[in-house]
Amino acid sequence: MSGEFFSRVIRFRDYTWKGIRAVSYKPPGESWSGVIRQRLLGPEEALPFHVRYFEIEPGGHTTFEHHDHQHSVIVIRGSGRVRLEDRWEELSFGDVVYVASGAAHQFRAAADEPLGFLCIVDAERDRPVHLEDDSGIAK
Amino acid sequence: MSGEFFSRVIRFRDYTWKGIRAVSYKPPGESWSGVIRQRLLGPEEALPFHVRYFEIEPGGHTTFEHHDHQHSVIVIRGSGRVRLEDRWEELSFGDVVYVASGAAHQFRAAADEPLGFLCIVDAERDRPVHLEDDSGIAK
Repeated sequence: MSGEFFSRVIRFRDYTWKGIRAVSYKPPGESWSGVIRQRLLGPEEALPFHVRYFEIEPGGHTTFEHHDHQHSVIVIRGSGRVRLEDRWEELSFGDVVYVASGAAHQFRAAADEPLGFLCIVDAERDRPVHLEDDSGIAK
Repeated sequence: MSGEFFSRVIRFRDYTWKGIRAVSYKPPGESWSGVIRQRLLGPEEALPFHVRYFEIEPGGHTTFEHHDHQHSVIVIRGSGRVRLEDRWEELSFGDVVYVASGAAHQFRAAADEPLGFLCIVDAERDRPVHLEDDSGIAK
């Protein structure tokens, strides 16, 4: 075995991964609903980027927010939509979302399906700034 | 719209993405067979990492090789296996593979299914070193 870290396969089973713990997206609050987060790769391997899996339950949503760091997102489960500034776009399996530095964004699952996506970010990143959710969508 | 780059959704359709061109994995050679590559995000957005999608056709394989940079892989289509140094592990949807710095590795699709995976790497990375394929698997 070469390298400082250990090459391995992390086994998938029904949108959980062996040895990976699902945690809350953020501390409880009004700005989000029904989101879990799993850290797949990054901190343990001293990678310069982190690979996370987020899953939003049917009807749930992430915080409407912006930050300086960019998001690279790939949908791997269900459907929903993303708000990028003032426009909403539908999302389903395989769609890739690029969120530019500073762009206000929010993810929402469909009413009857979860929305699950990989999100890759810089290891070093700034904290999100919450924005007023002015979308008029019932919470 | 904020930021230097443009937030957007890149639409998926049958393992191709709108506006993204599929290219050969490497120049033609004996070391690999039936692999295409699509660059989803990275260079255009000046990201410190690149997100690529590789697809190996049934029976095909990547080069057996090593390099200093790490691989973060997530399988999103079909099945196959990965060689990590001297062991082979089966792969199917959702499995995550971490290839450590310097670890010899090779991906192979199943005989009757493609193997498609996302592979995230540092934007700055060294060139792979080909190794003799001593697996005894017919090419």
